[in-house]
Amino acid sequence: MAQTANPVFLRPVAEPEADTGKAITFSTPLALDCGRTLSPFTIAYMTYGTLNAARSNAILVCHALTGDQFAASRHPITGKPGWWDIMVGPGKAIDTDRFFVICSNVIGGCMGSTGPASTDPKTGKPYALDFPVVTIRDMVRAQAMLLDALGIEKLLCVTGGSMGGMQVLQWAASFPDRVATAMPLATAARHSAQNIAFHEVGRQAIMADPDWNGGQYYERAHPAKGLAVARMAAHITYLSEAALQRKFGRELQDRDQISFGFGADFQVESYLHHQGMTFVDRFDANSYLYITRAMDYFDLAGDYKGVLADAFRDTKARFCLISFTSDWLFPTPENKRVAHALNATAANVSFVEIESDKGHDAFLLDEPQMLATVRGFLNAAAAENGIA
Amino acid sequence: MAQTANPVFLRPVAEPEADTGKAITFSTPLALDCGRTLSPFTIAYMTYGTLNAARSNAILVCHALTGDQFAASRHPITGKPGWWDIMVGPGKAIDTDRFFVICSNVIGGCMGSTGPASTDPKTGKPYALDFPVVTIRDMVRAQAMLLDALGIEKLLCVTGGSMGGMQVLQWAASFPDRVATAMPLATAARHSAQNIAFHEVGRQAIMADPDWNGGQYYERAHPAKGLAVARMAAHITYLSEAALQRKFGRELQDRDQISFGFGADFQVESYLHHQGMTFVDRFDANSYLYITRAMDYFDLAGDYKGVLADAFRDTKARFCLISFTSDWLFPTPENKRVAHALNATAANVSFVEIESDKGHDAFLLDEPQMLATVRGFLNAAAAENGIA
Repeated sequence: MAQTANPVFLRPVAEPEADTGKAITFSTPLALDCGRTLSPFTIAYMTYGTLNAARSNAILVCHALTGDQFAASRHPITGKPGWWDIMVGPGKAIDTDRFFVICSNVIGGCMGSTGPASTDPKTGKPYALDFPVVTIRDMVRAQAMLLDALGIEKLLCVTGGSMGGMQVLQWAASFPDRVATAMPLATAARHSAQNIAFHEVGRQAIMADPDWNGGQYYERAHPAKGLAVARMAAHITYLSEAALQRKFGRELQDRDQISFGFGADFQVESYLHHQGMTFVDRFDANSYLYITRAMDYFDLAGDYKGVLADAFRDTKARFCLISFTSDWLFPTPENKRVAHALNATAANVSFVEIESDKGHDAFLLDEPQMLATVRGFLNAAAAENGIA
Repeated sequence: MAQTANPVFLRPVAEPEADTGKAITFSTPLALDCGRTLSPFTIAYMTYGTLNAARSNAILVCHALTGDQFAASRHPITGKPGWWDIMVGPGKAIDTDRFFVICSNVIGGCMGSTGPASTDPKTGKPYALDFPVVTIRDMVRAQAMLLDALGIEKLLCVTGGSMGGMQVLQWAASFPDRVATAMPLATAARHSAQNIAFHEVGRQAIMADPDWNGGQYYERAHPAKGLAVARMAAHITYLSEAALQRKFGRELQDRDQISFGFGADFQVESYLHHQGMTFVDRFDANSYLYITRAMDYFDLAGDYKGVLADAFRDTKARFCLISFTSDWLFPTPENKRVAHALNATAANVSFVEIESDKGHDAFLLDEPQMLATVRGFLNAAAAENGIA
């Protein structure tokens, strides 16, 4: 494997110049669940803090569907703070003065890790839909190879929300000896019918855009309209009804009365348009197809003849599960299912449902009870593992 | 005004031949909330049962967003039973052996009433986006003119679910002397931020389709892909998460294992595709824009300086409000808001929340408690109004 510059492919770096991170290209093939292999492949990642001499203070942060490795540093395309800036940093709940935090872009992503926009070595052109359909387990396998390369045998903690939480659960199942503690937030051990349905609407919106062109668009106009519609639909599911009502209600945008037209009369419409438009500047439509598919395919119990507890039979990790009362995308009962499966294996598990009206996105926001829970759990993990 | 044949515009009539209904074209202009007038305009409608000599047994059934006048008879395009066949018919809860039921296609619709696909008399071509943006109140005004034409001064009952329920509330507010009883189901006195957001996603999906062409598509390919995506997104909101999980779960469609591709692996995907594809055969994309907009604009209290109770200050109607526990699109609290406003005016109101896991669509389905409630309420209304 070789250290390479991170090939952020979509846009020039925002000013002021941001850290575009690191990347490792592996010559060892990555064996995928679909039966194919990926070789060579690149994992783009960021680290925050310092690995201690015992190599025992590493925390892997796993990102969600549209996240990336820029958890705690300025995003090189948007120039915005990292997606978990509230959580990760010096003195924060995931304290980079104490812990060495790694966050890598998932396989299938579009921020430097190998994905559908990457060059297919067989053709010299972007994979597009020739890229293999990857799974959450494939993402985790690739992360494990990254940790090998970084010389990290065991994680003090693996954490993440939403799809990040799926990866956390998969880590505990696939690599039970490499995980001291696991902290999944706002997640599920399987994607529900409603979750799959919303994802399929997004994919159909992308594939309905003539600019998608069967996935072959890298040298021409991207399917921006379709991707924007997909993002808008998804974005509604990230917020609670109460949060939308509180933030926007029926307030009008820059006008005193309704226009009797189809422009953005309501603030909530204007907000959705903005979400759609800014998303297409930083995300690849084919990556959206692949990553949503990985989430749809996730059904951890399915790999264990339907018995979720069996996924955790070898784990020695201490777990902390966090859900949010108003999250209707990954609601508390789905998180509780995981807790019950862990209970059935006599695993060490605590479960916290946090009162919040902010919906699924609560895990990304300033929720004091969440931040306190994470801080407390990591303090205990550090003490138990002899970390100062 | 003149009796005309109902110009169902989309497709030939299904076999066996269905009743395509009646239509009246009015030469009196319809004054609209936007300040424009519509003239001439046509209302297409169906009637079921017989008007009694006293003209006192008429029930107006108002349809929802994608409904039409075919409440209790075979649909002329799809050949399927009427959308409220479970409710309306001889011996049913809305008993056409006793009551005279009228159901008309809303203004802005596409099943014969004047809408964006109708010919603009100024140009001789379809209105398309030159059609005025109509409101729920405009729909109700047009229905009142239909009742005038049919010689019906007062309704024994006005009823309907979802957007139909909005019309019911508007009837009670706009024509308090013409409504003896009102029975809105699964509705709200205002469209919420989340409701508007979902509608905007659907509109953006339609308008992103190049075949939409600024609304000018009547003589060429219709924006079928965009309309199908809009329908798929909306359809998810009509069902509860529990209903989707129970009906489909993670069951695969015609295969033993996942395909590692982007086809319809899951039954829920196949179901959504079917919903999208069949919808475009019977619905006009521009009508979808106009009718969703009418719903978004609906805020009954807004016409009364924000005091919802004032909308009902002149009503003498007896009300029966029905909501469903798992309806997250028009949840019980929105229905209760209406009940509270009616209570504040000392109106005669009963409110029933029905236990159902079927989501918003419950009002269209075989819910025994709903059917019993409707039957009981109409029995009482009939007795009070001297109807056998």
